[in-house]
Amino acid sequence: MEGVFLSELRQISHSKGDIFHALKATDESYMGFGEAYFSFIWKGEVKGWKRHTEMTLNLVVPQGKIRFVVFDDREQSQTKGEYKEFFLSPDNYKRLTVAPDLWVAFQGCGPRENMLLNIASIPHDPKESVNREINEVPYDWSLL
Amino acid sequence: MEGVFLSELRQISHSKGDIFHALKATDESYMGFGEAYFSFIWKGEVKGWKRHTEMTLNLVVPQGKIRFVVFDDREQSQTKGEYKEFFLSPDNYKRLTVAPDLWVAFQGCGPRENMLLNIASIPHDPKESVNREINEVPYDWSLL
Repeated sequence: MEGVFLSELRQISHSKGDIFHALKATDESYMGFGEAYFSFIWKGEVKGWKRHTEMTLNLVVPQGKIRFVVFDDREQSQTKGEYKEFFLSPDNYKRLTVAPDLWVAFQGCGPRENMLLNIASIPHDPKESVNREINEVPYDWSLL
Repeated sequence: MEGVFLSELRQISHSKGDIFHALKATDESYMGFGEAYFSFIWKGEVKGWKRHTEMTLNLVVPQGKIRFVVFDDREQSQTKGEYKEFFLSPDNYKRLTVAPDLWVAFQGCGPRENMLLNIASIPHDPKESVNREINEVPYDWSLL
């Protein structure tokens, strides 16, 4: 799906506590720095759907496990109508980059804290995002 | 101590999971984006001492509790020889900004995962940092 990238990230083991990379200014998926924030999500809960018209998201999950679903309803897209699903966690530690104009929702899957860091390319601006209720985009959110 | 700033950060409560701010490009302590990474530290362990000659650190602790100690041995500094100590956690959720040329070490204080996010003003470059063994800078690291 155009505009969706999954990047390998280094996790450096250390007896005092590990180091997990998140994003470098020299990475291909770096589209500028606007804001960084954490979002927590309890098991089974879903936040979304949200579509940004300007912001590129760079998402990593250093704690717990989160399911991300990207839905494409862009008019000119080859993959219009398609969904992509990703489960990110420290055990599958990758960075998910999502370009503007795609719909995103995410769900907590781990039993304790599920935490994402979003390094957004622009600061939060409610005027550049659109929301839909979770039921407005059909998707089976049942957890295995 | 010049070059050390503690900034208030918003924590937005939400029944599905909270949102914690970390850094905005419009914040006064934003000195450019070079790299973001997580560092974990087990209870009682200390990482440090490290002094950066170019990098400004922006440190937040979204999980656990971490003690940061900043030591000033800058030649021209009014506070040469002094230490500053900060305990950061979700319950004392602030951003610690540390300018170049100060020594920093940190210790895990919480029983489970203690995690910091550093949003560094330049990418990692071993040539711009200096290390000292933990005993080379005297400090009482005993936990209460």
